[in-house]
Amino acid sequence: MGRVTQRRRVIRVRGGQISARPDTLVAEEPLEIRLNGKPLAITMRTPGDDFALAAGFLVSEGVLGAAEELQSIVYCAGATADGSNTYNVVDVKTAPDVVIPDITLERNVYTTSSCGLCGKASLDAVRTTARWPIDDTQGDTAPPVRLDLGLLARLPDRLREAQRVFDRTGGLHAAALFTEDGDLVDIREDVGRHNAVDKLVGRALREGRLPLSRSVLLVSGRASFELAQKAVMAGIPVLAAVSAPSSLAVDLAAETGLTLVGFLRGDSMNVYAGEHRLALEATASTS
Amino acid sequence: MGRVTQRRRVIRVRGGQISARPDTLVAEEPLEIRLNGKPLAITMRTPGDDFALAAGFLVSEGVLGAAEELQSIVYCAGATADGSNTYNVVDVKTAPDVVIPDITLERNVYTTSSCGLCGKASLDAVRTTARWPIDDTQGDTAPPVRLDLGLLARLPDRLREAQRVFDRTGGLHAAALFTEDGDLVDIREDVGRHNAVDKLVGRALREGRLPLSRSVLLVSGRASFELAQKAVMAGIPVLAAVSAPSSLAVDLAAETGLTLVGFLRGDSMNVYAGEHRLALEATASTS
Repeated sequence: MGRVTQRRRVIRVRGGQISARPDTLVAEEPLEIRLNGKPLAITMRTPGDDFALAAGFLVSEGVLGAAEELQSIVYCAGATADGSNTYNVVDVKTAPDVVIPDITLERNVYTTSSCGLCGKASLDAVRTTARWPIDDTQGDTAPPVRLDLGLLARLPDRLREAQRVFDRTGGLHAAALFTEDGDLVDIREDVGRHNAVDKLVGRALREGRLPLSRSVLLVSGRASFELAQKAVMAGIPVLAAVSAPSSLAVDLAAETGLTLVGFLRGDSMNVYAGEHRLALEATASTS
Repeated sequence: MGRVTQRRRVIRVRGGQISARPDTLVAEEPLEIRLNGKPLAITMRTPGDDFALAAGFLVSEGVLGAAEELQSIVYCAGATADGSNTYNVVDVKTAPDVVIPDITLERNVYTTSSCGLCGKASLDAVRTTARWPIDDTQGDTAPPVRLDLGLLARLPDRLREAQRVFDRTGGLHAAALFTEDGDLVDIREDVGRHNAVDKLVGRALREGRLPLSRSVLLVSGRASFELAQKAVMAGIPVLAAVSAPSSLAVDLAAETGLTLVGFLRGDSMNVYAGEHRLALEATASTS
């Protein structure tokens, strides 16, 4: 597809100097996600990895949890007047035995439930749809994930090194998965941070790597409730953000056991929840 | 309401030093927007200015265009089990003579139209629902907006000076309206940039200030299609962003006549569309 960036003419002003030249911009186009033929959602995304984006979105929504549950993903053909494909509509077909939660109904219940609409209801919705606990002991056969702070501090640099498009457009968010040893597993970029995470999770689903119970998810920018939700739904035990988290992201992390780190910059970070996965004592003893 | 920030315990790591202390976070909670009693949308927002947020959202959707079209906005009472109000559900009632576009139907048409789902369809949807052209001549009685580059360059500093919450949480986006003379009209902050813009536009609607045809909208961060759409729907002629625009934001600006400036930093900026509203010649002559 290769539509991650697009060229447009720009007038550059640098002090008193003005010049016109082509500029590279991050591409943004709508993607409609259909589930078994039925329109479900539209997201504004950067084209590329669309099948992974759709699959990851459905993991976040609690529809998919394993590669076997996914029968096929296709671009809907003949969507334009002349019969050509826009590559902006994908249809996800689930395996015959997959029970589809009534997502629309669920959202209505969620918004008209007796407790009203509140942060608590948002937390409840995640807890009731999550496929896995944030369980990094893998059936008691492995020790819990425990990260060295120095390792965590080095991840943002690795993210930046691996970002190919950012330098050219300045308009892309990035999300990366690392192993607990700090090795880069995958990185995705998108005009929307939530899309970048969905693409990571969708690729993992399709390759049979869910739950991502030994992984660290690092996102450029901030950590909203939505990103924390996506981490929880994919079974990721550690979410680290370069910038600030929101109150509801912290509340969700605290309730589900997710480790949430914010303002990860240089050798500084703020730990908002799940500090038992970080080797804080080792660091403290050196101070 | 005063729920813009919340306090949570955080473990701070600064090099080898570890300390636990309370931290100020940007508040994030869901808001359900109902239109004449019917649930329409849920947005994750920072509480405060909820009525303005709902009104501005409906301007962006093409439902509202003038204060008279708005009959009332209320928090839905008794939403919780104990009858107390969560202040997270608002119902917007339109005046009796307002014809409500079938927003759901419109979106279906938009996504299943013969041309398929593509950037072009997104642009068409804005053009067909816009209440006003980006017309800054006000019926030929006023000259078009024409901005001095120095004036534009000073706006980000004014935005930062006026931001009260950012320094405490690092998690808020800001949007500000300025006059064509560079005077600050209004500023809103929110965990979501689109919410901050909706709050600005909603306040303007309720005060009878739409269309905002002599205004400059400045946003922290990036300029997505959605933000450009909101500017167009409010009749704002100039959108400036501190960071990068997307391809579709530039396309929408070029099609509607919106002036779109990105990377507005110090005395540098990139002009992507609508350069006739900027006094580029004056600057060029000084170089």
